Amino acid sequence: MKLNRDMNILIVGLGLIGGSYAIALKKKGYKVSAITRSASSIEYAVKNGIIDNGTTELDEALIKSADLVIFSLYPKVFKKWIADNGHLIKDGAIITDVTGVKGCIVADIQELLGERVEFIAAHPMAGREVYGVENSTDAIFKEANYIVVPTDKNTEDAIELCENLGWELGFKRVTTLSPRQHDSMIAFLSQLTHCIAVALMCTNSNPNIKEYTGDSFRDLTRIAKINENMWTELFTLNKHALLREVDAFMYQMGRMKTMLETDDIEGLKEMMILSTERRSEFDK
Amino acid sequence: MKLNRDMNILIVGLGLIGGSYAIALKKKGYKVSAITRSASSIEYAVKNGIIDNGTTELDEALIKSADLVIFSLYPKVFKKWIADNGHLIKDGAIITDVTGVKGCIVADIQELLGERVEFIAAHPMAGREVYGVENSTDAIFKEANYIVVPTDKNTEDAIELCENLGWELGFKRVTTLSPRQHDSMIAFLSQLTHCIAVALMCTNSNPNIKEYTGDSFRDLTRIAKINENMWTELFTLNKHALLREVDAFMYQMGRMKTMLETDDIEGLKEMMILSTERRSEFDK
Repeated sequence: MKLNRDMNILIVGLGLIGGSYAIALKKKGYKVSAITRSASSIEYAVKNGIIDNGTTELDEALIKSADLVIFSLYPKVFKKWIADNGHLIKDGAIITDVTGVKGCIVADIQELLGERVEFIAAHPMAGREVYGVENSTDAIFKEANYIVVPTDKNTEDAIELCENLGWELGFKRVTTLSPRQHDSMIAFLSQLTHCIAVALMCTNSNPNIKEYTGDSFRDLTRIAKINENMWTELFTLNKHALLREVDAFMYQMGRMKTMLETDDIEGLKEMMILSTERRSEFDK
Repeated sequence: MKLNRDMNILIVGLGLIGGSYAIALKKKGYKVSAITRSASSIEYAVKNGIIDNGTTELDEALIKSADLVIFSLYPKVFKKWIADNGHLIKDGAIITDVTGVKGCIVADIQELLGERVEFIAAHPMAGREVYGVENSTDAIFKEANYIVVPTDKNTEDAIELCENLGWELGFKRVTTLSPRQHDSMIAFLSQLTHCIAVALMCTNSNPNIKEYTGDSFRDLTRIAKINENMWTELFTLNKHALLREVDAFMYQMGRMKTMLETDDIEGLKEMMILSTERRSEFDK
């Protein structure tokens, strides 16, 4: 099953990512409406042609008319929304999401919805360091990965629709992972790196260091500007996978430390050669 | 004292940094010669107008004619060169360097040279991930810091000359630090970040991760492609300062780990808020 232009697409949560979805879908000629908390977001989005129409109300007719509902909410808010309002979604509709953790929500939400409405999870690995629909742009998808995260409850139809959504949004690559694979990968590639950047910024209180920072330190800490509400939620919801990665990283830091202390030059060189080899693979 | 165009400038070690110095100085009309190990580097540099003349020999007349000698060598090779050949430098000449660590070499080299020749240390905080004179370009200095690292043995004249060299090379900022301040700053801003990037690349052996890496992981690990000979030398020569920074960073990582384990959401948020605050200062 593929997206078609007769479908009514509803976005719940019109922030940076929800807004960027809307922009990409409208460009391709889809009908897009939105429900979000802030009246000014709706006003801005309608005025700028980002959505066709929207509301801050729990508009039952609007929800009922949607064939595809895209949830762009924090994970816990998403789960609560489904628990409270899932019954308003029409039979046979498909819902998807943009949530950065999966294991803790996908099975629960599929359980809440039962057989009537199908939830196919997805994670668009794109973002900016700014927030809100006003900063939305589909340019963030251009070089990014879109990951479809099905469970054994999902149908081929829904998986195909979700993949098609990723391509229509303009992602560079669309792939598929299980919730467990997804969370483990995200724990390493995204959450651990945010932990490192935050810990590094907390390490040195000397305000003068900024006079001397070069590009490499700036690159490494760009993600240290972080939305503490979203990221504590993502961290704690993926706690076990993240702790495994934190331990694995600290083990390697500990190895380097011991090598330094004991002047184990060959050991240090081996780590650097391995690191160079692996990192070079990224540039191929 | 300032640089003047009648001075003979000799660069010892014509790699990426030595070559980039030569390019910048020649553009400003200075006379630049070079001594380096590789005949092809000299050939390339002369042919491309990067230097006026050069040799792979220990040309005593050339060394004797130099008013300013710039050493662009690994720290241990630099020290050995001065021990073996320092007597060939003429009375009253000034020498400087580009070495990334200072405490372990500056005092020793000043001691080796005695009163006859003055060594004023400097660290151009610029580089690329590629090597050799063929990759030289003065563009790397444009947004970078140049740090003059004097000791109490240095004269005002030599410090002023060295600062002037930084400006003539086209650096964005020229500052002054003591060897101890320099090494502590570099341990945190440069060496610790390289340790982190290397340890991170050694943490995960799954070759498939590269399919999912986003910009933030790529930014964070760009410096994980590392010259193992140069960096093990820089690490071990600044071992004590670096170990202090590694410990301080691992302490903060450990704090985050404990907060995660104990669901200390407020603690995690505080770290993220501090991190965001400090990192935002860089963008001002």
